[in-house]
Amino acid sequence: MEKTKKFLLPENQLPTHWYNIQAEMPNKPLPMLHPGTKQALKAEDLYPLFAEELANQEMNQTDIWIEIPEEVREKYKIYRPTPLVRAYSLEKALDTPAHIYFKNESVSPVGSHKLNSALAQAYYCKKQGVTNITTETGAGQWGTALAFAAKIFGLELAVYMVKISYEQKPYRRSLMQTWGAQVIPSPSMSTKAGRKVITENPTYQGSLGTAISEAIELAMSTPNCKYTLGSVLSHVSLHQTVIGIEAEKQMEMAGEYPDVVIGCFGGGSNFSGISFPFMRHNINEGKKTRFVSAEPSSCPKLTRGVFQYDFGDEAGYTPLIPMYTLGHNFAPAHIHAGGLRYHGAGTIVSQLMKDGMMEAVDIEQLDSFKAGVLFAQTEGIVPAPESAHAIAAAINEAMKAKEEGVSKTILFNLSGHGLVDMAAYDQYFAGDLINYSLTDKDIADNISKISQLAH
Amino acid sequence: MEKTKKFLLPENQLPTHWYNIQAEMPNKPLPMLHPGTKQALKAEDLYPLFAEELANQEMNQTDIWIEIPEEVREKYKIYRPTPLVRAYSLEKALDTPAHIYFKNESVSPVGSHKLNSALAQAYYCKKQGVTNITTETGAGQWGTALAFAAKIFGLELAVYMVKISYEQKPYRRSLMQTWGAQVIPSPSMSTKAGRKVITENPTYQGSLGTAISEAIELAMSTPNCKYTLGSVLSHVSLHQTVIGIEAEKQMEMAGEYPDVVIGCFGGGSNFSGISFPFMRHNINEGKKTRFVSAEPSSCPKLTRGVFQYDFGDEAGYTPLIPMYTLGHNFAPAHIHAGGLRYHGAGTIVSQLMKDGMMEAVDIEQLDSFKAGVLFAQTEGIVPAPESAHAIAAAINEAMKAKEEGVSKTILFNLSGHGLVDMAAYDQYFAGDLINYSLTDKDIADNISKISQLAH
Repeated sequence: MEKTKKFLLPENQLPTHWYNIQAEMPNKPLPMLHPGTKQALKAEDLYPLFAEELANQEMNQTDIWIEIPEEVREKYKIYRPTPLVRAYSLEKALDTPAHIYFKNESVSPVGSHKLNSALAQAYYCKKQGVTNITTETGAGQWGTALAFAAKIFGLELAVYMVKISYEQKPYRRSLMQTWGAQVIPSPSMSTKAGRKVITENPTYQGSLGTAISEAIELAMSTPNCKYTLGSVLSHVSLHQTVIGIEAEKQMEMAGEYPDVVIGCFGGGSNFSGISFPFMRHNINEGKKTRFVSAEPSSCPKLTRGVFQYDFGDEAGYTPLIPMYTLGHNFAPAHIHAGGLRYHGAGTIVSQLMKDGMMEAVDIEQLDSFKAGVLFAQTEGIVPAPESAHAIAAAINEAMKAKEEGVSKTILFNLSGHGLVDMAAYDQYFAGDLINYSLTDKDIADNISKISQLAH
Repeated sequence: MEKTKKFLLPENQLPTHWYNIQAEMPNKPLPMLHPGTKQALKAEDLYPLFAEELANQEMNQTDIWIEIPEEVREKYKIYRPTPLVRAYSLEKALDTPAHIYFKNESVSPVGSHKLNSALAQAYYCKKQGVTNITTETGAGQWGTALAFAAKIFGLELAVYMVKISYEQKPYRRSLMQTWGAQVIPSPSMSTKAGRKVITENPTYQGSLGTAISEAIELAMSTPNCKYTLGSVLSHVSLHQTVIGIEAEKQMEMAGEYPDVVIGCFGGGSNFSGISFPFMRHNINEGKKTRFVSAEPSSCPKLTRGVFQYDFGDEAGYTPLIPMYTLGHNFAPAHIHAGGLRYHGAGTIVSQLMKDGMMEAVDIEQLDSFKAGVLFAQTEGIVPAPESAHAIAAAINEAMKAKEEGVSKTILFNLSGHGLVDMAAYDQYFAGDLINYSLTDKDIADNISKISQLAH
């Protein structure tokens, strides 16, 4: 019998609801705090910054399922449901008894999973009568997605793009411009936060933390404008659960259930998206699936950070967030997986990590590219440098299965392709990329700077 | 009721056979001729150049259906069947009564339809024990596809890439290198054909014709090496019919049948692929579907060329081919749709054109980009500059339907995405692109140079 490679869901099986894990977590995430009063924030406190429905979703700890608006589902159909793929050729190259599956979010027209939340956020902003939105972008995946979403819902968008990515990834910038967005390299002189950083360090190549500060500042000072974020926050993870809900049905089509689920980890949205719908069965039915986040060794907040309150941005404009963090002024090395260069993890994931419901591994830059090239040469898809971290972690799991002589079902999220990141692969082949190690002292020194914040 | 946007076929409906229109054409294509003896070529005459099964397919005028080898079908499953998509948002933006569908070949991991033939050619070469293959590439789509195909079937590949594309599209080069191919800008000093061109015109930016000469020369002078071509030839069009065969089933799912089928036109492979399986019903059942090829105004072989015998390459290494041509030494303008910069059309398409079974339109460069941007902003996918010609032609058809107040079902082939062509879009937005006009005299002068060849 012929083997099935891709498991496809028809459009009429597109999920109708997102899964809100907050409603089912044994320990709820701690509340975000007002930095001055130290009081727990309510949804209303976020209304100045976010569309109201998004703020409500952020704080929703009661509704297990939240309906996906019809207008968003219509737009999801541009690329969803995405395929679940059995990586037969990769398995063969590794000579592993493990079965490796990946959810292929790279088929989105913007090339990554980010569109899942961009469409939702643009929709809710539009519905509320907002005309302008701002955001930041690291590698450019989120900015690209939001640019398309803003265009089809008729919103003006300004994107602060981390300077190093702005320079390394000109095609991402072009894509955003093709969809009509304004793109500003960050740090910029257009905001107080940006000017401060440039003044203190004129050659600073930018970070997500700084870009977030700039985008928030612009949103707060522009009429009828809201800020949007592509990761970290709970409502973003919520929207991404469409990935895992589809994958669950597709694994059923494949007649398997994952022993381990893997996602690369920046702020947590794609990891959450693939994991939470499966984690639900760990919580409710005692399943024993492992959930492994793969972060870069150069930005190891889950493997080497601390769990405490910290700001989400460089300038301290955000509420205090209970998170695993390296400190909000952590300046990560200039690795090519720009989307993973963020100092903290979202509140849900941080709580799950604290409660031992998930694991974290760190991946060196060179190992991620090695895994990416092997994947490209076997499965055909050149992965985004971010996604290559998940592939590297999946390969490690598959090799462990081989050593132990056990079969194992591995599912990872291919969050995006790397066709717009080929300059990074060029540098890898030229031998110009290196690993970045952090000493325990580097990490402790940076964390000590936030020790005065609430615990 | 919810509208279906994407029509998906499950893997088990992947076509089992390619459609060989040669066996059903009312007038068969004229034979290729040996340039010295002027004798009609037989399949065996092509064995030195091509894998035997490919040469046999090239000349096969009897078998209507040719079985797709199991190994090729297995690899097709990486991305096939591809979606058929209803372009609701584009229709709405045009306010047209026409129904517009596109076959989305951009979901292939290499970003275009070219993989359909690359996998077949690499497979047949491997099967015959060939170890090395050569080819040329214009925009880089074909070279990219063949690089992946060569890698998974274990062949060494050398690609001559048209110099202007080599410089304009560095990411394509990187992709080929990621899949292990050697890439040489053409004209190069590595072949006699290349050296001659460089000597006569040191600043020449290259053409497909020259790159073909170089790839053939390398193949002929390398042991156990075959040449492969990504378009023009009949066996390439044969492999591409997998597109139209799928589309036929998918249009049936949509409950419609196309009034007009459109493909952009370089050498003819993607146009043939989407068209021939539908043209079959014109031939056998008297259906009246129109077939429209969209070529660039700067390289108008079908709309302004002549039908006569000509060489397929610059140096005259190929047999004499009966084709619509602008002359084999035609030097096309440096438009960004590099895949459409070829002087001639394949023998099948040329005969169909001569017999009035298809039409051709030409599209100006700026109109193609305008159409491409509208498509990106409505349907989300940034099209390859080549594919944007098909979109422009589809838009023209849709606007005609609107003027005439009639409904019409339009199907076009989205042969590839433009994520690796963003530099071209940048130039378009910057106002740096222009249209290129050819005077009748330009064309007549060039054609006169081939008047001594067989008619």
